[in-house]
Amino acid sequence: MLTVEEARARILAAIAPHAPLPAEAIPLTTALDRILAEDAIAHDETPPFINSAMDGYALRAEDTQRATPETPVTLRLAGEVPAGRVYAGVVAPGEAVRILTGAPVPDGANAVLQQELTEVADGMVTVRQTVSSGNNMRPAGGDIRPGMRLIAAGTQLGPAEIALLAAAGIHPVRVTRRPRVAILATGDELAPLGETPQPGQIRETNSPYLIAAVLRAGGEPIPLGIARDRTDEIRTKLDQARTADLILTSGGVSVGDYDLVKQILAENGNIDFWRVRMKPGKPLAFGLLGETPLLGLPGNPASAAVTFELFGRPAIRRMLGCAQVERPMVKARLIGSAIERGDRRHFVRVRLLSHDGILEARQTGRQDSHLISSLQGASAYLVIAEGEGKVAEGEMVPALLLNDALPWENEV
Amino acid sequence: MLTVEEARARILAAIAPHAPLPAEAIPLTTALDRILAEDAIAHDETPPFINSAMDGYALRAEDTQRATPETPVTLRLAGEVPAGRVYAGVVAPGEAVRILTGAPVPDGANAVLQQELTEVADGMVTVRQTVSSGNNMRPAGGDIRPGMRLIAAGTQLGPAEIALLAAAGIHPVRVTRRPRVAILATGDELAPLGETPQPGQIRETNSPYLIAAVLRAGGEPIPLGIARDRTDEIRTKLDQARTADLILTSGGVSVGDYDLVKQILAENGNIDFWRVRMKPGKPLAFGLLGETPLLGLPGNPASAAVTFELFGRPAIRRMLGCAQVERPMVKARLIGSAIERGDRRHFVRVRLLSHDGILEARQTGRQDSHLISSLQGASAYLVIAEGEGKVAEGEMVPALLLNDALPWENEV
Repeated sequence: MLTVEEARARILAAIAPHAPLPAEAIPLTTALDRILAEDAIAHDETPPFINSAMDGYALRAEDTQRATPETPVTLRLAGEVPAGRVYAGVVAPGEAVRILTGAPVPDGANAVLQQELTEVADGMVTVRQTVSSGNNMRPAGGDIRPGMRLIAAGTQLGPAEIALLAAAGIHPVRVTRRPRVAILATGDELAPLGETPQPGQIRETNSPYLIAAVLRAGGEPIPLGIARDRTDEIRTKLDQARTADLILTSGGVSVGDYDLVKQILAENGNIDFWRVRMKPGKPLAFGLLGETPLLGLPGNPASAAVTFELFGRPAIRRMLGCAQVERPMVKARLIGSAIERGDRRHFVRVRLLSHDGILEARQTGRQDSHLISSLQGASAYLVIAEGEGKVAEGEMVPALLLNDALPWENEV
Repeated sequence: MLTVEEARARILAAIAPHAPLPAEAIPLTTALDRILAEDAIAHDETPPFINSAMDGYALRAEDTQRATPETPVTLRLAGEVPAGRVYAGVVAPGEAVRILTGAPVPDGANAVLQQELTEVADGMVTVRQTVSSGNNMRPAGGDIRPGMRLIAAGTQLGPAEIALLAAAGIHPVRVTRRPRVAILATGDELAPLGETPQPGQIRETNSPYLIAAVLRAGGEPIPLGIARDRTDEIRTKLDQARTADLILTSGGVSVGDYDLVKQILAENGNIDFWRVRMKPGKPLAFGLLGETPLLGLPGNPASAAVTFELFGRPAIRRMLGCAQVERPMVKARLIGSAIERGDRRHFVRVRLLSHDGILEARQTGRQDSHLISSLQGASAYLVIAEGEGKVAEGEMVPALLLNDALPWENEV
């Protein structure tokens, strides 16, 4: 049996020729959660000019050198520079110019005195203190300098990254094309969404799960529905996946008599059929169908979820050109029953709570691979390494953070 | 000046008549990240029938009572029940039926023996061990029982929740309508996305930021562009926001001579003009424009981001009917320079790293409210309470987790 790391390394090596996908230019306002295709480099300064940090008066600092509360200096109010405009003249000795926050500091002036510290009457500004040169002035380029690498290629764009790109005028922005991910469930026992299961059938849940999980990972799902356990039906469905960058199947890869996906892979592409030393999720198929990578996930819902997380999501992230294809790993303290180690790595669905700076992990319920209810509310998979003995309550254990969900609860 | 809590409580009280928004029924496959409008209650059992946990043979446990490796029992292979079908007959004494994982256990049988532990030849199944009643049988309703509350109203739907709703046949699903959020930037100094700033102008970044942040919060942004500093232009733009559930403006609410949003609010609605004891983000306007709540954010990018986070996002989440309108708060250890306390609560942009089970917080850069570059990469706002003295390196400090971004780095 392969280890999780060996299986993932083989998958990532096999998709390397398909990654990253080509870049496309899109409007910045539609770029949320897309992956930057190339480093974003600033071309000019932000702010583009020296500007005022306050509403007040631009003046020459040297004019205020002798000002005290008892012996104020008065300056002639020579004009005004609101935000968005440039003062036409030059501030001369003995003059002050009204200025608003963010407006360019006029030539001649070298300081701004905030309005709260002055009095203005009859066209004269009274200054009762020494103002030092540079006071309340924001330098040009103080936020962004030309040539600065603002955001590295492979970064997922959130609101702050989008604001930064807008500040630098990077619009449209070049992002990686979203991988098209075909999703096929297989099995005679599956009733599709919206249909009442026949006797012996259960409702199919892996397609709805995977559609959502692929979207979260940054892919574009292509749902192919359900194929019955017949090679011709599976083949017909997979023919619709010709434009896909990746195919995900669920079911059909274990040792059952009707497990046909691996048979099709063997006939029409090249197949690696693996058992991976993990729980849930032991049986896994990977190969190429023609040129397209195909990942055959197990049919049990928890197994499909965990194997998508460990192998499918990294494949999608690699195609997107993400710097980091794996989820963040943290350490959390086990609360509740001890967990037995075994000969396979165990991924235990847990809910995390931060308590006094320490993460606490509690199981969401029973961990059998056919259970769907305990997937819900899981904010991490606790990673129980292969071995002997037990992980006891209170031990610090690595946890794979499912952090694009809502993984946290408030401290109590 | 109001505290952050007082300001938020007033805003949430004012939008209470608008929250939650009405429910709408949508296909489950399009429900990712939507908010469940009513408790999801299971109507039937999952799994719907007793089924096999293994590929193997359904049999009567009592037939195997005397079986040992040396004195095996042989059972007549009477038929087969693949997944998705029901065995027509009844398993009689001395019989076994081939069964696949997930298939209904036939009447008469009360145990399943996995195929690895048997030998089959010439229509006979050899059993070399005692099989206990119930072995490898999954009970009906073992995952979901009728009447169970699967997911509470107000929950955001992730992949696992969608799988659970699919398992229970809840499709279409009733979710809260997304709040329509109009977004208007104001200021003569602002150049819109895609245009070169004129002398004295800067590129506008709050609209792109807020469009993305509103999407992340679950709202539907209605971008209104930029209004110059003239009441008629602002009024014309706001007229386009008539269908909005919430209006966000940025700029125009501080003490500058051209701050006109508050003037329009005062004339055409009802206004609360506040200073909030926080940094960045002191000036904030809130009121009703006609019937529509309007939140006037400050113009500086960091101020707009932090005030949206503290006041705008909770308003949207309340309209969505979310159980929890505030972000999770955790404790993190300050790394790097000490932070001076002041008379306003300070929200410091930090990057979090989990190290040996403890979160470490490092500032992303200088914290001036006009800087955009240090918004980037922030995974939390460290909350420095009002007071005297300093928060020293190593202290544990509350942090507001911006967790729908990518808040974590791997442990190093």
